[in-house]
This record gives sequence, C-alpha cells and structure tokens, in this order.
Amino acid sequence: MLATLIELQRLKRLERTGWTLRGLPNGTESVASHSFGVCVTAMMLADEVKARGLEVNCERVLRMALLHDWAETRVGDMPKTATRYFAADARKSAEASAFADIVDGVGSAKSEYRELYKDYEERPSLEARLVKAADVIDLLVQAYALERSGARGLDEFWQVAQQPDFKLPQLADQVVNEVLQSLLRARSEIE
Amino acid sequence: MLATLIELQRLKRLERTGWTLRGLPNGTESVASHSFGVCVTAMMLADEVKARGLEVNCERVLRMALLHDWAETRVGDMPKTATRYFAADARKSAEASAFADIVDGVGSAKSEYRELYKDYEERPSLEARLVKAADVIDLLVQAYALERSGARGLDEFWQVAQQPDFKLPQLADQVVNEVLQSLLRARSEIE
Amino acid sequence: MLATLIELQRLKRLERTGWTLRGLPNGTESVASHSFGVCVTAMMLADEVKARGLEVNCERVLRMALLHDWAETRVGDMPKTATRYFAADARKSAEASAFADIVDGVGSAKSEYRELYKDYEERPSLEARLVKAADVIDLLVQAYALERSGARGLDEFWQVAQQPDFKLPQLADQVVNEVLQSLLRARSEIE
Amino acid sequence: MLATLIELQRLKRLERTGWTLRGLPNGTESVASHSFGVCVTAMMLADEVKARGLEVNCERVLRMALLHDWAETRVGDMPKTATRYFAADARKSAEASAFADIVDGVGSAKSEYRELYKDYEERPSLEARLVKAADVIDLLVQAYALERSGARGLDEFWQVAQQPDFKLPQLADQVVNEVLQSLLRARSEIE
Amino acid sequence: MLATLIELQRLKRLERTGWTLRGLPNGTESVASHSFGVCVTAMMLADEVKARGLEVNCERVLRMALLHDWAETRVGDMPKTATRYFAADARKSAEASAFADIVDGVGSAKSEYRELYKDYEERPSLEARLVKAADVIDLLVQAYALERSGARGLDEFWQVAQQPDFKLPQLADQVVNEVLQSLLRARSEIE
Amino acid sequence: MLATLIELQRLKRLERTGWTLRGLPNGTESVASHSFGVCVTAMMLADEVKARGLEVNCERVLRMALLHDWAETRVGDMPKTATRYFAADARKSAEASAFADIVDGVGSAKSEYRELYKDYEERPSLEARLVKAADVIDLLVQAYALERSGARGLDEFWQVAQQPDFKLPQLADQVVNEVLQSLLRARSEIE
Repeated sequence: MLATLIELQRLKRLERTGWTLRGLPNGTESVASHSFGVCVTAMMLADEVKARGLEVNCERVLRMALLHDWAETRVGDMPKTATRYFAADARKSAEASAFADIVDGVGSAKSEYRELYKDYEERPSLEARLVKAADVIDLLVQAYALERSGARGLDEFWQVAQQPDFKLPQLADQVVNEVLQSLLRARSEIE
Repeated sequence: MLATLIELQRLKRLERTGWTLRGLPNGTESVASHSFGVCVTAMMLADEVKARGLEVNCERVLRMALLHDWAETRVGDMPKTATRYFAADARKSAEASAFADIVDGVGSAKSEYRELYKDYEERPSLEARLVKAADVIDLLVQAYALERSGARGLDEFWQVAQQPDFKLPQLADQVVNEVLQSLLRARSEIE
Repeated sequence: MLATLIELQRLKRLERTGWTLRGLPNGTESVASHSFGVCVTAMMLADEVKARGLEVNCERVLRMALLHDWAETRVGDMPKTATRYFAADARKSAEASAFADIVDGVGSAKSEYRELYKDYEERPSLEARLVKAADVIDLLVQAYALERSGARGLDEFWQVAQQPDFKLPQLADQVVNEVLQSLLRARSEIE
Repeated sequence: MLATLIELQRLKRLERTGWTLRGLPNGTESVASHSFGVCVTAMMLADEVKARGLEVNCERVLRMALLHDWAETRVGDMPKTATRYFAADARKSAEASAFADIVDGVGSAKSEYRELYKDYEERPSLEARLVKAADVIDLLVQAYALERSGARGLDEFWQVAQQPDFKLPQLADQVVNEVLQSLLRARSEIE
Repeated sequence: MLATLIELQRLKRLERTGWTLRGLPNGTESVASHSFGVCVTAMMLADEVKARGLEVNCERVLRMALLHDWAETRVGDMPKTATRYFAADARKSAEASAFADIVDGVGSAKSEYRELYKDYEERPSLEARLVKAADVIDLLVQAYALERSGARGLDEFWQVAQQPDFKLPQLADQVVNEVLQSLLRARSEIE
Repeated sequence: MLATLIELQRLKRLERTGWTLRGLPNGTESVASHSFGVCVTAMMLADEVKARGLEVNCERVLRMALLHDWAETRVGDMPKTATRYFAADARKSAEASAFADIVDGVGSAKSEYRELYKDYEERPSLEARLVKAADVIDLLVQAYALERSGARGLDEFWQVAQQPDFKLPQLADQVVNEVLQSLLRARSEIE
C-alpha cells in the first residue's frame, strides 16, 4: 500500500497543464487539488440528487471521483490538444494500463479500484456520469474563481457549459443544470 | 451549493503552513492537496481493515476525510504552535462554527455534513479514528517524499510515528502500524 | 538574540493569506515584505506630520511598525474571517503571549519590546495610531499595485479607505487623508 | 508566422515534468529553458568536434536543437514512464503530427523545419546524434546544479552517463565522453 | 567547456526583471526562456528574409541570438531604469568583459563567440540587426500573451512597436513590420 | 509621497539574486524581506550595544537599515560578480543617483533620507557600521535557515563570518562577534 501512497504524492505537485498553457502562473492548481474539488462537487451533486428521490450509490461516486486521475502520475496531465494526435483509444488504454500498475501493490482492493476506473472511463452508470459532471463543474468553478481575480482568455472552457450532455436521468440533469446556470450567472456579474 | 463550491476553491491555493515555516518553498502542498492525500489514505486503510474482517462504514470514512479541513477557508491553516496560545476549546469551537457557516447553503445535506464534522472532531467512532490515522500518515508520506528530494529539518514530524495512539481496535491498529513501520523503514534507507 | 532572529526568518516566507484566499498567486507578498512596507509608510507619515509641527516620537513609530506582526511566526497570518469565529480577546491575547515568548531570549530590551507591542495593540498613543494608518495604507498601495497589473476582485479592501477612522489629531489626520485621497485618485485612473 | 511564435511562448511556462514528479519545486526548469540549454550545449559540442577535424553542419545542429521540443506545446512534456504505456510509435507519430501542424503557418521554411524534425527523431545524421547527446548533457548539467544546491533522489538520471551510446564517430564520441567524465568527476566532489 | 555550461544553467532561473518590477508573478519568464524565444524568432525572420531574396547568414543569426544574454549570469538582468544611472558605456563594457570571462574555458571557439558578441553589441551587420528585431518581437509576443491572460500595465513596452527603427534594408524591414503589424492587430482584439 | 510608496512596493517581489544564482527556488527571499531582516537585526544589535554602555542613535540605525536597499527598485539587485565588471565607483554613484531620484517626491524629509543613505554608503559613523554588520548577519541567518532545510552549496557566503571587519568600537564588536559565533556553532550542529 505504501508504494502507491508515495507515488500518488506526485499529484500534489503536478500542475494542471490547461492553466499553464493559457499563461496562468504555476501554482494555479495541482492535479491533487483538482481531484479534491471533483470529490467535493461529486458528493454534493450526489447528495442533492438523492435528496430529490433518485437512487445513487454515493460511496461509488466518492471512490470514482477520488481515483479518476491517478493514472496521471505515470502518463502526465496531457493537454486537450494532445487527444487530437493520439488515436482515441491509445490514450484511454495507456491510462488504464498505468492505473492498473499503480494499484498493483494495494492488496485485496485493487480489483475493485480497477473496476471503478473502468466504470468511470466507459460511463455506463449514473455514478460515473455524475462524477464526469463534477469534473466539468470543478473546472468551471476554478475558471470562474480565476476570472474573478483578473484572469482572461479562458472563454473556450465555458463552451462546454452551453450545451452540457452528461446523459443523466432527468432529475440528475436538472441538479447539474441548476449549478451550471447559477455559475454562468455569477460569471456574467464579474466586474 | 455553488457558493460553497466557490469558497472551497480557496483550499487549492492555501499553503500548509507547517512546510512554509520550516523553510520549504511555497507550492509544497496546498490544503486541498493534503485533503486529497488523506482521502486516498483513508480509503485504502478502511478497505484493508474491512478485508481483514472488521466492519467499517467506508462511505462515512470517505466523507469525513473529504470535509475535515474545510474550516480552513475561513480560519486559515493555523501552525501547530498556535494551539499553545489559544485555549484548547477556542480553536475547536471556532472551526466548528466556521464549518457550520460554510455548509449553510448546501441544502438538505448540510446537517449530515455538520454531524460528520462533529464525529471527526470528537472521534468516538472507528471511522473518525481511521481518518485521523490517515491524516497523520499522509503528513508523513509527504515528509518522506520531501526528505527523499533533499529536504532536511523535519525530524519533529516523525515523533508521532514512534508511539502512535489512535485508539483503534487491534485489527485496525495493526494495519496502521504496518504502514507506519514500512514508512520508517523507507525513511531509514534514504541516501 | 540569535534564536529570535532565526525564528523571525519565517516571516520572509509566510504568505499574506488575504491575497491567497482571493486567488492571487503565492509569492504575492510575505509578512516580512508587508512589515517592510509598513515601516517605510510609517516613517514617511511620521516625518511629514512632524514637519507640519506636531510632536511625534519617530523612533517609537519605527520600532512599533517593525515588530507589530512578529507574533505571526507562531500564530500564523489569520484571515480576516477568522476574527468572526474567535472571541475578540482570544486572538489578541494569543498574539500577545506568542510575542512575549518570541522575544524572551532577546536580553535587556525584551521588556521594551513587549511594552511597544502592547502600545500598538491598545493604541492609546499617537505613534501607535500612525502605525495602524501605515498598516492600512501599505495594504492599499499593494492592492493598487496588484490592480494596476490586472488583478480584480479586491474591492472589499478599499472600503476602509472611504471613511478611515484612526482617531488621529487633526494635523496627522490630514496627512493620512491626503495620501488616501491621492491613492483613490490613482486607482480611478487605472485602465 | 505570428501564430507560431505565440504558440511557442507556452514552452516558457511548461514545467519539465521529470523534476516535478521527483518532488522538486515548480519553477525548476521550463521546456524553453531546457531547449536553450540544449542549443548552447549542441553549439559547443559541434564547434569542438569541428575544431578537431570532423566535418559538421553547425547550422543544422543549431536549428535541430532549437526545434526538437516544439511538439510539447500540443502534446505536453510526457514523463518517461508514459512511454511504457503508449506503443513506441504512437508517441513519435503524435509528436510528428503536432510539430507539422505547429509550423503550418510559417511560410516557405515549414518544409525545412519538418525535415529537420524528422532527421532529429530518426537520427541518421551526425548532426542529429550530436543534438541528442546535447539533450542528455543539458539534463545532467541541470541535475548536477540541483544536487549541488541540495537536491537528492536524482540517481536514476545518471545511469545514462555510465554507458552512453550516441552512435557517434570516434572523434565526436571522444568530445562527448570528455564532457560526461568531467561532469561525473564534478558530481563526485559535491559535499 | 563544462564550467561554462554549468554557469549558463543560472539563466534558467534568473527572472526577467521587467515583468517582476511591473507586479507580475515570479516564474513569468526566465532569461533562458527569453533567449529561446529570441532564437526562434530570429530563425524565422532570417528564413523569411532569405526566402524573399536577401542574403542572410542564418548560422550567424542563430549563434548571436543564442549568446546575446549570457553576460547576465554575472551582471544580472538590469532593469531598463538602470541605464539611466550608469554611463552608457559602463554597462556595455561591463557586459563585454563578463562575456569574455564566461567563455574563457570554451576552447578554440571562444574567440568566435567574443567576435559574435561584439557584432551584436555594435550591430553593424544585417544579422545583428535581425537579432535585435527578434529580441524586441519576442518581448512583445510575451507581453501580448500576458495581456491575453489578464495582465495590465504593460503599455510602455508597446511604444517601441510604434516606430521601430532597426536600420534594416527594405526587404528585411518589411518582414519585421508585417510581424509587428499583425501583433498590434492581435493586441487590439483582446477582450 | 505616494509615488515613492508605490515604487517601493516593487522590492516586495524583487528576488535576491544571490540565492537564485545558486539554484535556490524563486520565492526564497525578496529584497523587502531582507530589508525587514536587516532592520530587526540592526535594532537588536543597537539595543544590546546600548545596554552595555555605548552611546548609539537607535533612530538613525533604524532609518538607515530601512532605506539602505531602496535604490534596487531602479538599479536591480546586482549579483556580487557584477562588481568585478563595473568600476568600484560606477555602482555606488549609480545607486546614489537612483536613491536621490526615488525620494524626490517625499517632501521635506528627502534631504534627511539622502544624508542617511550617504552615511550608510561611506560608513563613517558607528550607526552605519552597525547596519552593515546587521546586513551581513541577516544574510547568514537566512543562509543558516536554508541549510537547515536542506540547501547546500552556500559555503562562500560564510567566509565573511571567519574574519569580520566592521571597524566597530570594541564593545560593539563584541556583541557582533557573539552573534556570529553562536551562528557558526548552530551551523556546525546541522544534521
């Protein structure tokens, strides 16, 4: 278990390249910090969806949010433009192999972690889709916080908020849209 | 919900003062990065403890690990020396009030979050104690990673590893001690 | 004396949390850098006040400005929101005790330092009030410099400049207001 | 031409992940800084090789050194471990396509740049091999400089210096080996 | 040669003071990163000028761009205001002596490097003038990239773009002006 | 007065090049932070010297310590090696002119500030010599703090501590030497 814990420390320092490549200073956001944000967002989304009557396995949501970026300790945080140059599957299968290796020393839980990772990557379940929505929302909340402090040039990140398509059941879709709408409203009030 | 998500973004930048005050460069570890590390460690500890036959509510473990440092957005990351100058209760009750305010806009889940926070602070449950152990282990894994890269002057952090007392049932205590022992071994092999 | 000098080195790295929590990058301003700014401002204010005919003990002004933030090596730079959660006196008395301990090894001057610290905290004297004005002016000059470089979202810092109340005698009040007015003018000319 | 110049600015901020993943602080070395170091080293190696009587096209050496990492603006600085998870060709062909796109707006010189990039990647020429040697030497000089300042845990980088195999003609090989030997000597004298 | 390579590593960390003094965060641009940008720009300018029919020694251009800032390892990156306080020649001759010392151990190429440095400083040749134009263009492309990300207060840098006078032959002047004009256009479209 | 305060903000960000050029990360120490350290050290030295019976004008000591590095906003923090390449007087007179310009808008106190600056630069007085000793001691305390955290390669800074010659009267010399001796002792106990 220790080897995995030591390796995952690296995510605390690894910068999210999306910000760096847009000219924001190093120290803006580490992969570990982003994962924390995704966990928080996913937990709140799941709790709200559940409160409105839809069945959600919150434990799965939390676990998936927590581990969805671990492969980056070995593969790095590839910028979005990279996907244009790798075959669609090349990146996914590279990350899946990296993930499998990272958790290899974890003990009996490792097959569960691999199964969760696969669920997140393929997203058949409500839980995986909620985590994906949380991934996007945390990105946008960070973009909003940066813009409020004076950052500019982040428009392209916001396109995803115009027509989100997370393939969620109606009730869950509504919760996600409420958050996105209030975020867009908050953004329009900057300055 | 959005106001809380925006506020918690702050933890992504807030430096852990323990490193700064010992001369390590800014960017060493944010509070959000540390929280991520505690979540990872807590999940693995809980899964291992469960695999050995003890009943653990892993969902509670994950939730508690995720939210245990949220109060720092309002109270800051007080250095350890600060506790010497505030009455023992002053800090705890300040953080509890701050936490209660932070989650005020969260909706129906807010009372659950407050209850989890209280459980963590008072630590009557196995789950809270496991999260505390994870909090210490993530600190030490970070210290180890820094020392391996050349950092010095961190001895005082390691004292806690000599005689850990997390008040855990034997089975769980054993898991925690195995991790601590292999960590001490890894440390002794540096250089 | 050396132990105190070593401990105060920590202020050179300790970030002012006010900027960090508003999304500005680490490295914006250390507590030591701010103390330097307060000393400079306090000296210039005191010299100008004196030139206009009011008696001021400039040496006391300089000493007080220099030592007013030393307690932060042990208590940290608590964010403004923290005061909402600690009893008004709790923070003051914690910082006073921390200060007393920090200068404990200084030799014969330590009682003078403690007396100066007390004067600053309680602010009965003209000198202490001038240092408080300098503390606020340096904050605003820093905010202005950041805004001129593109930072946004700092409006709340400027509220204090609208109706400053440093309880200064008329002549000193005038000097402070002239600086604040020209600062507000400079700010309105950004962009 | 301008679009390419703007895009290449990104390399000034992009951290070399090799250092980050080993716990060194952000700001250690940008990709652009490293490219500068490779250019300097390649020029000196080529000039020395030429002075000893071997024919070298120094202009080609300089051009190749300058552009060998441009693809990273789109693909990122993938950590070494990443190569384990992508098919050997996948990364090379992704980087080649990214490079081709980056220089697309450059005008008449773009086909020359693409040809130089291909030469570097396939390394049939003396010039390409010298640049590869310069790439490794700059990495090691940086590692040496970091170790001299206190960094530890960089041993694995030095393995390549034990048995370098750049497939250089004897005269060039000798120049490269002299530099590597004096570097190893300098390293052994640290502390 | 190694001593020179080690010394030039310093340029990878040395901040360009122009940005720091205008309130931009450390990490914005190192001297080495800027040198990389000047090399890239100079190569593209020279290639374009050559493609339009003017004879240019591209190898000289590349070498000069690469070494034009080496003296800063010993003299530092003096801010523009410094020139006001040193006699015009004092700085030039200090940098020339520093450069001469830096390359002292380089071997047979050192006299060529010194001659190139002299050419750049006195700028009699087309090549030196192109490198100077590249130096200014890289500065402005960096300024543009910063402004696009939200930086403000950089107007004074742009004055040089209004009436550039690099004393270039008409064909080369045209190439430089096309780049500057499209840069000014891009700037006017920010926000 | 405001223009001067705004200009001096720059010292909060300006890195001390001595550390940068030795491979320590940016953020290690700003010029303003160092000035703070010199003020603190100078005050404590002066108070101790006075307590032992020597007459010292502590106000002058504080003022001189505070303003001794202001010229760096315009001339930069020139590395030690730079002095080798500028005529001894060139740097001093450049800094003196820069200082005179910086305080030009300060009002009636400006001639006093210029006189203090001259005293510090020429060092005829006990006060100026104490500030110089404080300048060196703060440098060494910072070096000690860095070494305790793992930094290496700083030996050359310590040479000055072997045979300090501040031309102080015996009583003051003794105080300074006691601090230096205990600092050397503390250093020898690292690790």
